[in-house]
Amino acid sequence: MKNIFNPKSVALIGASEEKNTVGLGISKNLLEGSQERKVFFVNPNRDIVLGLNCFSKITDIQDKIDLAVIAIPAKFVKEAVLSCVEKKVKGIIIISGGFKEEGNEKEEEEIREIVRKNKIPLIGPNCLGIINPCANLNASFAPITPKKGSIAFLSQSGALIDSVIDMAENIGFSKIVSYGNESDLELVDFLNYFKDDKETKVISIYVEGLKDGRKFMEVAKGISKPIVLIKAGRSDKGIRAAESHTGSLAGDYSVYKSAMKQSGVILVETIEELLDTSKALAWQPRCEDGIGIVTNGGGLGVLTADYCFQLGIDLPELEKGTVSFLDKKLKKVVNKSNPLDVIGDAMPERYEAAIEAMLLQKNIKGLIIISTPQIMTDHDKNAKIIVRLKKKYPTKPIMCCFVGGKLVSSAVKHLEENNIPNYFEPMRAVKSIKSLMKHG
Amino acid sequence: MKNIFNPKSVALIGASEEKNTVGLGISKNLLEGSQERKVFFVNPNRDIVLGLNCFSKITDIQDKIDLAVIAIPAKFVKEAVLSCVEKKVKGIIIISGGFKEEGNEKEEEEIREIVRKNKIPLIGPNCLGIINPCANLNASFAPITPKKGSIAFLSQSGALIDSVIDMAENIGFSKIVSYGNESDLELVDFLNYFKDDKETKVISIYVEGLKDGRKFMEVAKGISKPIVLIKAGRSDKGIRAAESHTGSLAGDYSVYKSAMKQSGVILVETIEELLDTSKALAWQPRCEDGIGIVTNGGGLGVLTADYCFQLGIDLPELEKGTVSFLDKKLKKVVNKSNPLDVIGDAMPERYEAAIEAMLLQKNIKGLIIISTPQIMTDHDKNAKIIVRLKKKYPTKPIMCCFVGGKLVSSAVKHLEENNIPNYFEPMRAVKSIKSLMKHG
Repeated sequence: MKNIFNPKSVALIGASEEKNTVGLGISKNLLEGSQERKVFFVNPNRDIVLGLNCFSKITDIQDKIDLAVIAIPAKFVKEAVLSCVEKKVKGIIIISGGFKEEGNEKEEEEIREIVRKNKIPLIGPNCLGIINPCANLNASFAPITPKKGSIAFLSQSGALIDSVIDMAENIGFSKIVSYGNESDLELVDFLNYFKDDKETKVISIYVEGLKDGRKFMEVAKGISKPIVLIKAGRSDKGIRAAESHTGSLAGDYSVYKSAMKQSGVILVETIEELLDTSKALAWQPRCEDGIGIVTNGGGLGVLTADYCFQLGIDLPELEKGTVSFLDKKLKKVVNKSNPLDVIGDAMPERYEAAIEAMLLQKNIKGLIIISTPQIMTDHDKNAKIIVRLKKKYPTKPIMCCFVGGKLVSSAVKHLEENNIPNYFEPMRAVKSIKSLMKHG
Repeated sequence: MKNIFNPKSVALIGASEEKNTVGLGISKNLLEGSQERKVFFVNPNRDIVLGLNCFSKITDIQDKIDLAVIAIPAKFVKEAVLSCVEKKVKGIIIISGGFKEEGNEKEEEEIREIVRKNKIPLIGPNCLGIINPCANLNASFAPITPKKGSIAFLSQSGALIDSVIDMAENIGFSKIVSYGNESDLELVDFLNYFKDDKETKVISIYVEGLKDGRKFMEVAKGISKPIVLIKAGRSDKGIRAAESHTGSLAGDYSVYKSAMKQSGVILVETIEELLDTSKALAWQPRCEDGIGIVTNGGGLGVLTADYCFQLGIDLPELEKGTVSFLDKKLKKVVNKSNPLDVIGDAMPERYEAAIEAMLLQKNIKGLIIISTPQIMTDHDKNAKIIVRLKKKYPTKPIMCCFVGGKLVSSAVKHLEENNIPNYFEPMRAVKSIKSLMKHG
């Protein structure tokens, strides 16, 4: 796996300069990677691609090749794989589609036999490729490279990866794998690799069908890191769409549900929730029940209290010590209760006192901090205070709801760069803090 | 009401230049309004505010005053109201808090008697003010002025308005009202006004407690425009927080639920859903059941099909005519089914043919169009095509899921400027198109 995720040298079979092609996408992404990695382009019809000399065949390259990426029409893939065997590459990614998912099982099987016989691990075919932001490697045709972080994202859908990394502006990844048809390397192989990967704290998965459900459950059970999973193909039409998409047999969702629960996998329903939950788990410590809410807007405080009730989260009453701490530090807070409304004209000092008071109370195990962009609100200062207090009290998770758009965006960036998740909708913050309780 | 929402002249009692004050906020917002409206500042302690002469008392102003906005400490408010009566203003907004919500019922009651006796309509006290983007009036201390649109937003929480207008970057409003303590004008009075307001297509409401539930239901029943409502204070802690926030008696949520259903009000659970639903209803026509899905990413297509099933939405099979239309126009679409996967390398023409084919099929009553930012995807062109086809087939609603961040933002802007709602999460699009079916 190491040779795939952090190769010293990569050859791209199917390098291209042609606009709007997969070949161009991968070529660009590979060139933008680490300077220490050697990149070679293979294309018999080209002398130069993006300023780099092109080789006719991979075997023409003098240097050793760790990883070969194949992105050429399906009918030429087998031959390319054979040349990779000859070249003794240490890993292969086949981007090209047109195999099992289009009914061409035989062609895929032949390739599988070749790599298995020669013990060369293979990802794909029919995938977007892989990205390892921690090693500055983008061996995919994703349109952007995500930033480095601690979430490993595995997806049976390549396109979904494009959406997720574009959505996840402030979220970093340790690895991204589009695992395609799982001809050789399977989802479970990656799970086993990420289990001990120091850069990975959370494993997030999009899946349509599991190749071997029982094996997946066994492997998942043995992983102490949180696994967050979304399963597509839950309805008749969805299952049929999944079959034509990845060729997966999607199976019965209720069976999945209970199997996932048994294996300790966190099953989510939407992509939004997948990201929300993953960043919470990647960035914040686990906690027990008992949440404090601080807000400068009464309304969102009321709603957040409602959502906590709905999800069975306790909001402890403020203790005497907390109230007297607040009395000393603040005058204007009308109701010293939980949720704690610091009121619309709260300047950063009032936020600071309120947050610290909450953090000091023993049976408050984590906080949700709400900020609405009122005319007196200094979001950037508030964000800095939160980051500072988080460092002072590292064991208690803090989720933020700076709810707005442009007015809060720089503060949100600062929060998330410091691994404090922000949610623009309180319900999403409440769901996410709940995930820290269930999966301790 | 007209004198309040589109006054020819406004006087602000409590104009200020002091940083981080409500007085400064309103002063700025009023000055940024329509040039045809006369704005006067009143403040006995200042000669000039923001370059404008200040009057000691409102009665010192020579011109007639339509609307007086009062933003001074509670103890001076009654006197200011009396001077407004003397000046014969046609409407008053009291921004100042410190009345019923802090236990000072008597003071509020006195003011109410004064305005009622003199037949001057009053908004507040204890509110953010009002905004009428259609008349270029911002008589509030909101930090920004939203753009003009067709959603009237009424909120019992002022701070929530700040969040909502900052979130709603591409969404415009016809009117925004922070109705505060409802001392004189009540929520139902605004409903009655918006019922016939030509600029308002949808009425959106945040409420903690209704002053008179029965009256609200009667009025709501008589309004043919959709009313979308979120109710805060559904749990014990939430109810208590609501009491200390707006002094509302929040009441039993299950009673609310059935009452709202009876009155045809669309009850939503989160602020995100409030905006999602409101923009769908404001921008798109109603439709019957039967939805087509077009996608360039198989995975999101599968998930969207699942969500449709979950919410009981039918995905009609493609008819012979539709398939032959697609056969003529396209080669590469593998599966001519619903969801229709135009595949990752879809250029705009393929999207166009797929969308038009779906729109032409009679039992497909509306579309969800998904776009993931793949390397070949031309979002901006796709958005233009969708806007064009929407104009060609105006009776069928189109919801978009351009799922991503920066890569899709300009396309999303173009879509939403043309009243085609975009959702970054397919479930939110499915929920929103469902709202077009239920409330026909």
